[in-house]
Amino acid sequence: MRYELYYWPGIPGRGEFVRLALEQAGADYVDVGNDEAAGGVEAVERFLDDERAERPPFAPPFLRAGRVVVAQVANILQFLGPRLKLVAANEADALWTHQLQLTITDVVAEAHDSHHPLGPGEYYEQQKPEARRRAKAFREERIPRYLGYFERVLAGNPKGPRHLVGARLSYVDLSVFQLVTGLRYAFPKAMRRIEKEVPNVVELSAAVARLPNIAAYLDSARRLPFNESGIFRHYPELDG
Amino acid sequence: MRYELYYWPGIPGRGEFVRLALEQAGADYVDVGNDEAAGGVEAVERFLDDERAERPPFAPPFLRAGRVVVAQVANILQFLGPRLKLVAANEADALWTHQLQLTITDVVAEAHDSHHPLGPGEYYEQQKPEARRRAKAFREERIPRYLGYFERVLAGNPKGPRHLVGARLSYVDLSVFQLVTGLRYAFPKAMRRIEKEVPNVVELSAAVARLPNIAAYLDSARRLPFNESGIFRHYPELDG
Repeated sequence: MRYELYYWPGIPGRGEFVRLALEQAGADYVDVGNDEAAGGVEAVERFLDDERAERPPFAPPFLRAGRVVVAQVANILQFLGPRLKLVAANEADALWTHQLQLTITDVVAEAHDSHHPLGPGEYYEQQKPEARRRAKAFREERIPRYLGYFERVLAGNPKGPRHLVGARLSYVDLSVFQLVTGLRYAFPKAMRRIEKEVPNVVELSAAVARLPNIAAYLDSARRLPFNESGIFRHYPELDG
Repeated sequence: MRYELYYWPGIPGRGEFVRLALEQAGADYVDVGNDEAAGGVEAVERFLDDERAERPPFAPPFLRAGRVVVAQVANILQFLGPRLKLVAANEADALWTHQLQLTITDVVAEAHDSHHPLGPGEYYEQQKPEARRRAKAFREERIPRYLGYFERVLAGNPKGPRHLVGARLSYVDLSVFQLVTGLRYAFPKAMRRIEKEVPNVVELSAAVARLPNIAAYLDSARRLPFNESGIFRHYPELDG
């Protein structure tokens, strides 16, 4: 099965949570938006605008697997999980893994809103004072609350704090790595403080980066650098 | 199976999307936060603060079904779907239903942010000018985009525009009803304009309200009125 990932080119963005799962599993996939030979951004837009689509995605990323098209990051990962062996087989564990992934979805949306509190329709430059206030609350209250939650989940895992769910790697471990990495890029000063309180989260992120397939990916040209068009943006005036 | 729904008392909020599914199915459930005999808000807080919990929810609502505890509205509905016969059995339809529900999650978060653009840590009264700007963008761009998307999905359903997925009622139909009803409460002026463009969405909402179990529920004391502590809030200065 060759998977086709459709996402905007040039940014890690929400697509990165899917890429990490595909890379860790060594799956055969094409990153359509970043691959001119596969159609590039025009192929992404054509798909979104297809008037005859019976099941159109609301927004990228979406994944095509044969005749199935799945959108929404957490839903894509839920779909891929059993296929890539990145989730436990029993229903209770799968639901719990998905529940944690949906909490990642929430904090990612808040990370976006820290630089776009007035919505996606205006540029950052049009909402800088508001972004300062929202980013302060995000740094001081929300990041500690979310990362503290994942710390609590790791510490409470009866199989030990090396993974969020059970004794094996799952897709949500990969997503926590991406979350921590993105937050470090966006808020380096704040994260130096916050990370002291969440040692298990820090260790999980480091362990994911050491996985051979992930390490090779991070070292490759396929890993797109964070930048100020994505979700995790470094504006020094929003850090502190 | 008696289900226990844990959610903050006194508001429809995110819990309402779960209540509608339970009510439509005629399920045996207790709304713990609103039921003093079942423990009320103290029981919700005790659950959240339980240091020994192996799988703590990040936030309400969460649902207890025997030994399983599920959080995140879309995940709860995904769990309940097959049990309440509110989703199709095949994987592709279930994924598509869940994908649509996750899009409801997104617009609900934006509805909340329309009155709290600077985050949940400050009162509405502390962010009124910012809320005006965000609510304007929400009314003029985001509501039409989201409802227009659901209109497109209904119009494109090969089984006809009466349901979002296939030829039968699913939990996401109930959620679209709640979304439309909440938006009408919060933004009555804007919705009078917007609804003209989305006739299938309007008809679906009306059809859900006519379902015998839903009609009886809406007429009961269990249906909590919208108010200015919930997600959908009516502040006249934010409508237009």
